[in-house]
Amino acid sequence: MASATLDFYFDFSSPYGYLAAMQIEKLAAKHDRKVAWKPYLLGAVYQKIGGEPLVNVPMKGEYSRRDMERCAREIGVPLTFPPAFPFASVAACRAVYWQQGDDPTAAGDLVTALYRKAFAEGGDISSAEGVLAVAEGLGIDRAALSQALQEPAIKQRFKQEVEAALARGVFGSPFIFVDDEPFWGSDRLEMVDRWLSRGGW
Amino acid sequence: MASATLDFYFDFSSPYGYLAAMQIEKLAAKHDRKVAWKPYLLGAVYQKIGGEPLVNVPMKGEYSRRDMERCAREIGVPLTFPPAFPFASVAACRAVYWQQGDDPTAAGDLVTALYRKAFAEGGDISSAEGVLAVAEGLGIDRAALSQALQEPAIKQRFKQEVEAALARGVFGSPFIFVDDEPFWGSDRLEMVDRWLSRGGW
Repeated sequence: MASATLDFYFDFSSPYGYLAAMQIEKLAAKHDRKVAWKPYLLGAVYQKIGGEPLVNVPMKGEYSRRDMERCAREIGVPLTFPPAFPFASVAACRAVYWQQGDDPTAAGDLVTALYRKAFAEGGDISSAEGVLAVAEGLGIDRAALSQALQEPAIKQRFKQEVEAALARGVFGSPFIFVDDEPFWGSDRLEMVDRWLSRGGW
Repeated sequence: MASATLDFYFDFSSPYGYLAAMQIEKLAAKHDRKVAWKPYLLGAVYQKIGGEPLVNVPMKGEYSRRDMERCAREIGVPLTFPPAFPFASVAACRAVYWQQGDDPTAAGDLVTALYRKAFAEGGDISSAEGVLAVAEGLGIDRAALSQALQEPAIKQRFKQEVEAALARGVFGSPFIFVDDEPFWGSDRLEMVDRWLSRGGW
């Protein structure tokens, strides 16, 4: 029987999602779990319950940029902000679901490569071109992915994934489920670790 | 020379502020610091930058109640929600500043007793009566405090404290400064501990 997954919901435009993505596989492996990668759009949350990107909110925005840099320094991960930020990540999300097919634990390499392009190198992954360049670097068939990004089936699949995330109560990035227990925020990884070690409390 | 303080900003209606208040003195003492208690009103933040109490926000509200209870269980602190919640805490704040006078590290007993009344016992500290009852239990002169709560000087003092908090960039509860380094959230106490141990990074 396959072990249970850690369900990792994130927005590609989220620096906290990036920081957590750089740590989540190691944490999952420690507890004999695999990561189920679940990219979605925080914009869908804002449409549903209001809100806007954290870095755009007065006071919270300034704090958050400082905090993101502080968190990155502590874990020794580079952090650069792409020139256009926050950015739309529809193409990146669709690429991940296309590569996953029926296996949500697949495409981890693509997720982390896309995140690194955006937040370690400050590159552009908002366009299909940006996504295709990263995918090609991993040996993914550029022409096939390019075509897939335009197909109704993958657009529909992604729409369903976003709806399913919201229906499950996901509203942030990162947002992690350990079985049915939800954890919001990259600063909750230590609690996720304790939760897994103790089997909850 | 007095050691530097940990400046602890909080709203009395904030369960995360309560959970942090139950832990902050031990953390401060570990690093040879005193806590400067800084009650203020999140309502002033909402007026300035928008927003509303976390528990009232769709999706986030449900998550937060679950998370507050989970955090309380983990640290072994009782958590009950007062019948009226979120509640106005002007009287509680004024009482603290009145008791402090010129010493922001004073009135810790009053702060924690008020918080326990609200969130350990589910009592009412939104009214002057509720605050006076808690203060009296600590041996504070009820008549003197009752009079003070109506005095223009303490009202003005509290107004200035709230303005000073916002001017410093405070927008949440708890919100802690280690010297000039800001930390938002009760889930950042471990990071505050590391920051103090390492002198920053």
